Amino acid sequence: MRETCSPKEQYPGRLFLAVPSSMGSSEQVWACPARGTGRGVRRQTRIFGHGSRCHHRSTAMLDVPFLPFCAFLGTLGLLCVAMVGTWCQHWRGGFSLDGSSRTFNWHPVLMVTGLVVLYGAAALVYRIPNTWSGPKLPWKVLHGSLALGAFILTVLGLAAVFCFHNSQGTPNMYSLHSWMGLGTVLLFSCQWAAGFGAFLLPWAPAWLRALYKPIHVFFGSTILLLSVASCASGINEKLFFSLKNGTTAYKLLPAEAVFANTLGLLILIFGVLVVAALARPSWKRPDSDSPDSRQPLLSSER
Amino acid sequence: MRETCSPKEQYPGRLFLAVPSSMGSSEQVWACPARGTGRGVRRQTRIFGHGSRCHHRSTAMLDVPFLPFCAFLGTLGLLCVAMVGTWCQHWRGGFSLDGSSRTFNWHPVLMVTGLVVLYGAAALVYRIPNTWSGPKLPWKVLHGSLALGAFILTVLGLAAVFCFHNSQGTPNMYSLHSWMGLGTVLLFSCQWAAGFGAFLLPWAPAWLRALYKPIHVFFGSTILLLSVASCASGINEKLFFSLKNGTTAYKLLPAEAVFANTLGLLILIFGVLVVAALARPSWKRPDSDSPDSRQPLLSSER
Repeated sequence: MRETCSPKEQYPGRLFLAVPSSMGSSEQVWACPARGTGRGVRRQTRIFGHGSRCHHRSTAMLDVPFLPFCAFLGTLGLLCVAMVGTWCQHWRGGFSLDGSSRTFNWHPVLMVTGLVVLYGAAALVYRIPNTWSGPKLPWKVLHGSLALGAFILTVLGLAAVFCFHNSQGTPNMYSLHSWMGLGTVLLFSCQWAAGFGAFLLPWAPAWLRALYKPIHVFFGSTILLLSVASCASGINEKLFFSLKNGTTAYKLLPAEAVFANTLGLLILIFGVLVVAALARPSWKRPDSDSPDSRQPLLSSER
Repeated sequence: MRETCSPKEQYPGRLFLAVPSSMGSSEQVWACPARGTGRGVRRQTRIFGHGSRCHHRSTAMLDVPFLPFCAFLGTLGLLCVAMVGTWCQHWRGGFSLDGSSRTFNWHPVLMVTGLVVLYGAAALVYRIPNTWSGPKLPWKVLHGSLALGAFILTVLGLAAVFCFHNSQGTPNMYSLHSWMGLGTVLLFSCQWAAGFGAFLLPWAPAWLRALYKPIHVFFGSTILLLSVASCASGINEKLFFSLKNGTTAYKLLPAEAVFANTLGLLILIFGVLVVAALARPSWKRPDSDSPDSRQPLLSSER
């Protein structure tokens, strides 16, 4: 059953203009002048074909299309990976597995690649409009696989720094950066295991999925934010460790410092934009908060 | 005009139970078994009395009440302020205005108090259910005043660190922490000025308010996240600077390090919880994304 309220019914006597949808989904979109002024224009979007509920969305006048934004985010993520690799290769001596500082260099590269960029890609899977219809299982497998890939890179990144510390006789886990980072990875491991158990294994009951889904969504964004905060504190710490002497002291802002500071800012921007994309109502599955999406998923695949 | 869809109409033949509302607002709440299983229970909330549109909310089974959550956040924020003050007083020599490291100590205290805790309080004003009806102007003035107070403390916190650096002959603005922090403060100043101009001054046109409101909301959360990331990197950096020698070296994790690391984690948790509260759909003004809330506010005060 479809509810009966439409913009024309809600705002009788006002002008409604058909404007094109930017999302390519089954939407009907109206634009109407701001009530009382006749000057502003906003959009009200109503989605059909996704269950039996009314589903209204009122969005800002200037909608940003998802896919170009996603392409921009992908470019930004690749730029972050390229920059952290360049930093370690060009200024920090490159990579090895001998327990030296060149082993440590795997740590920032793997953490940025896994816990930020690949994690961000995994988080955004369900914002792709193609995932909103048809079988859910392939998209769930893609989401879980990307997250698993991110987790594996993260564990390798942790192994690199522990190996470096142990071979140098440096204690592990004393700085705030390490506390934040390990806390983030522990949260991520719980998130992956609980997500796998609840949404991919067939025997989780519907009430458990319904209960856990908003928790999974909340920690999805939280873990990414903690990741980028950990990266920023880690880059800051590494620069203080590495740039100590003479003309390359950090406080003299040599080229390496400018480069790595810029990398830190880009990682922060990437994280904030991914979380903003996740939170944006008009980019969510139309039925993301409906009863339907809390059905047992494997047992009700279309 | 009120739309006609109700849970009983949408899901005929299923059991609906009246359950108490946790928000204390004018809500009607139903619980119904999860479709297809008969085992899960979820809540569907419908808000009346906030304009002419239909307004459905489907939330998780376990709703968290806002006001107790807010009291918890307030306690956590005060704990952060008390801990950063204790750190600087007990371990870092206290406070003065003589340009020494005791002048620097004002920096973490003012930043945590202003840019994190008071800022968080300002951001949450519109989530208080009392603000959802009656005149908007007092709440707008409260929101702007708390933000202005946060901004003043922030500027004083910046002045403290610049004064310390200048009196010690240390360059300013070279670390990633300083870039992040100053960027956050610049964003905050733009946010406050633009918010004041758009929402408190009477001559901003409705279309401009409508266009700017989602941008203001987005940067509201973003600035808080950048603040807590800056705090974490700053605490990490300060501990590496301060705890260098002998039995109090940072890597030996003395009591000060444990205390300040814990402070950093609590600040992160505070920031994440405030942003989560801001993003939670059931805690938003019922008409927060409706045309009504984008009316010229000063000229249409009730």
